[in-house]
Amino acid sequence: MNFVGSHILSVSQFDRSAIEQVFDVADDMAPYAHRQRVTRVLEGAILGNMFFEPSTRTRVSFGCAWNLLGGEVRETTEVKTSAIAKGESFYDTARVLSGYSDMIVMRHQQEGSVEEFASASRVPVINGGDGANEHPSQALLDLYTIRKEMAARGKGIDQLRIALVGDLRYGRAVHSLCKLLSLYSDIQFMLVSPPELRLSDEYLDGIRTAGHQVIESGDLQAGIRGADILYVTRTQEERFPSQQDADKYRGLFRLNQSIYTENCEPNTVIMHPLPRDSREEANELDNDLNENPNLAIFRQTDNGVLIRMALFTLILDVVHQVEQTAKDVNWYTAKRF
Amino acid sequence: MNFVGSHILSVSQFDRSAIEQVFDVADDMAPYAHRQRVTRVLEGAILGNMFFEPSTRTRVSFGCAWNLLGGEVRETTEVKTSAIAKGESFYDTARVLSGYSDMIVMRHQQEGSVEEFASASRVPVINGGDGANEHPSQALLDLYTIRKEMAARGKGIDQLRIALVGDLRYGRAVHSLCKLLSLYSDIQFMLVSPPELRLSDEYLDGIRTAGHQVIESGDLQAGIRGADILYVTRTQEERFPSQQDADKYRGLFRLNQSIYTENCEPNTVIMHPLPRDSREEANELDNDLNENPNLAIFRQTDNGVLIRMALFTLILDVVHQVEQTAKDVNWYTAKRF
Amino acid sequence: MNFVGSHILSVSQFDRSAIEQVFDVADDMAPYAHRQRVTRVLEGAILGNMFFEPSTRTRVSFGCAWNLLGGEVRETTEVKTSAIAKGESFYDTARVLSGYSDMIVMRHQQEGSVEEFASASRVPVINGGDGANEHPSQALLDLYTIRKEMAARGKGIDQLRIALVGDLRYGRAVHSLCKLLSLYSDIQFMLVSPPELRLSDEYLDGIRTAGHQVIESGDLQAGIRGADILYVTRTQEERFPSQQDADKYRGLFRLNQSIYTENCEPNTVIMHPLPRDSREEANELDNDLNENPNLAIFRQTDNGVLIRMALFTLILDVVHQVEQTAKDVNWYTAKRF
Repeated sequence: MNFVGSHILSVSQFDRSAIEQVFDVADDMAPYAHRQRVTRVLEGAILGNMFFEPSTRTRVSFGCAWNLLGGEVRETTEVKTSAIAKGESFYDTARVLSGYSDMIVMRHQQEGSVEEFASASRVPVINGGDGANEHPSQALLDLYTIRKEMAARGKGIDQLRIALVGDLRYGRAVHSLCKLLSLYSDIQFMLVSPPELRLSDEYLDGIRTAGHQVIESGDLQAGIRGADILYVTRTQEERFPSQQDADKYRGLFRLNQSIYTENCEPNTVIMHPLPRDSREEANELDNDLNENPNLAIFRQTDNGVLIRMALFTLILDVVHQVEQTAKDVNWYTAKRF
Repeated sequence: MNFVGSHILSVSQFDRSAIEQVFDVADDMAPYAHRQRVTRVLEGAILGNMFFEPSTRTRVSFGCAWNLLGGEVRETTEVKTSAIAKGESFYDTARVLSGYSDMIVMRHQQEGSVEEFASASRVPVINGGDGANEHPSQALLDLYTIRKEMAARGKGIDQLRIALVGDLRYGRAVHSLCKLLSLYSDIQFMLVSPPELRLSDEYLDGIRTAGHQVIESGDLQAGIRGADILYVTRTQEERFPSQQDADKYRGLFRLNQSIYTENCEPNTVIMHPLPRDSREEANELDNDLNENPNLAIFRQTDNGVLIRMALFTLILDVVHQVEQTAKDVNWYTAKRF
Repeated sequence: MNFVGSHILSVSQFDRSAIEQVFDVADDMAPYAHRQRVTRVLEGAILGNMFFEPSTRTRVSFGCAWNLLGGEVRETTEVKTSAIAKGESFYDTARVLSGYSDMIVMRHQQEGSVEEFASASRVPVINGGDGANEHPSQALLDLYTIRKEMAARGKGIDQLRIALVGDLRYGRAVHSLCKLLSLYSDIQFMLVSPPELRLSDEYLDGIRTAGHQVIESGDLQAGIRGADILYVTRTQEERFPSQQDADKYRGLFRLNQSIYTENCEPNTVIMHPLPRDSREEANELDNDLNENPNLAIFRQTDNGVLIRMALFTLILDVVHQVEQTAKDVNWYTAKRF
């Protein structure tokens, strides 16, 4: 895969070698993201951070990744502030906005919208999430986290046993992660969900065709035993037909320290695409796990910055220039990492 | 006209020589806007991009123009988030915000608001649109586009034949463009609109007093024949007394490739202030024109960045310093222009 | 007090020597805020400007202060765009967002929210206002303004006679200012308010315990006589039980030029935390005072930028590096200050 000048719209664009290329560059971005070094490689470059659907985490993560490379960010945060509300097509919006910046990140609730937008854009576009469809940088940061966590435990991604827990039907992050993991060898997918929120046949077929093993369970404790990674998800209430439908599944699976201790190896990794729903009636990942060193959920979001920096530098072909303009950080930095 | 330190509130401030000055500087900004060169001339300067009415295109265009000169942008995007809602006067808002930045761009739906704001501001203010009143940078970018398009066809602005099509009553862009064109010689204004949406007498009188010719028509095909430029507009539905009133005019005039072929010279330029309304029932400028090389609507918005960069550098008196801090772009850039 | 790496959550953190330290650094920031010099000391540093409650003035002031030091700003402006709406805890939000930036400024309407957030953050957090509770940088800029205004009149803060006028019950700025002033010697607090909007006993006790004098009055003209400073406030209508309750107090105390002339020394300073309510029925500080040279309300907001720059440089330990990366401003600057 040649990244230079390309759009990033779907995890389907990636093969194993492209993934490894992103991850290797992400590793190199650590000193900048961790505030040891400052680079100005993209000084003067502008990111159009176009979020036509509300988002704090993803929007700020992309914006910071660009700032960390020395570039400027112009933003839009809501669809109602947009000319789209006056009947403007994605084609027009894309042609116009792509005249203002060097790259565009776009989120929009309509499936396929970002692809349509990209086809008219004159600059590279990264899909920041188009409804229930794709959010490729999330899947990449999840897999990158898996690689780092497993490496710290002396293992790789091949032969991974991963338990995916919760709403596997509507969870976009789970779907994309399954696709990426399927590129590796001999993965054991342990799927834990209520019957109505099972992973759909489309994804199950993809996993099995790629030669991996699937074990489905409706029981949390039985379902997670033996896993290297627990990937817990929030019920995607906003994608259910009605709130009543969503209510039925709230709080069905709750991982906490005592369940973890009883059923997991002492170094089993806990992941979650965030936000986790910490309201008492949901609480799929209990706060009593917050001091557990295997809780990797904040390392995941930290890794997101590295992955996004890697995509930016690969697409804009500046990977080998990052260090040329770098210097040491001269201000106080907390020991965060 | 002395630009240094001045507000830009109305097209009435400009004479022909001031316009040419802006256009000459705009020409010089092309290497920066087209991502061949990067300048840092405004490094450390702050733009207050104060949009008290929703806007994506204009807001991002001003912000990018400032970023392209090396400056930083602080923004406000909605009136409800402002102290104005707590009874603060424009005087106070202007005095306060003008202590935070080196220049302010302001949009507000109330006519005259930006002028009132500017009178209290301690830094230069550019009117980014005050209701149905003025939006001077739009008129300048329209005229700049006309100059460039005509020059590419071996002609100038004098003796121009321009067809203005659609809602000529409520269209702020049309009004301001008529004023600027009236500064030139021997223009033929071909006005095509429903009778109720005619250009108002105020503007007609101005055009005729300046010695130009006016031809009015209620028929699209007859009305555009012989024009050098077709300037098509969207029905400004939000300014009509009611939605019902607006509905009567939706889709009355629709330019498409076959009407163009039948009635226009092969190099007749097509312009539109954007956004165009591409909903099926409106569609004043059909998508089948998208590949027509004479469709200049995206060159218009690209030119907007040049015009805004020119205004910033003239007002802040850095025109001759832009190149001093410049270097070549070191990242991948699409061939957009 | 050691500022390096610390959170700024409450005025209670400050003793007199810490305050003086902030003020001395604020003095040094003047050439940068006044656009005579540009510094790049925080080039590459990122501020997370997290406003979960609407604000223009404070948000832009913090953002500009950071930009003036050379850093980049990423922002959030509304709670509904946040994952908090999906059940995310402050703990999670803080852990995630603190992985993206070097410092965070946070505003949220819930009392105590910023402290909870800071306890989970991996980077320093400044409280930008948590409901009716604290807004420490406002109190510091008020006191800094008092110091500067009194110094220009050959006086200090000790022995100050300050009239606090209006809604002393709900006004957060008044409460915090009282706490800070209590650290000085022999202050005369002249409290002018309707009986129902008196300063609460909690604050009165604090003032008296610290050895200062309190004089309460329900009459504007009698109440302000002899003061060095008049600190007028807006009725905090949004914090009243109902709009009807608030309506009773609107317009009760109105300071204008003729009341000022009749009751004040010719150099008595007029302050207000802004926004002032200039609607005819409120109008606690009349526009006929706008040309009075003792009206310090816009010097107050200008001072806010200095105070915020001082806090940033102290916390990030770059006070002595600011000038090292500085150069003269090369663009037109209005004589604003």
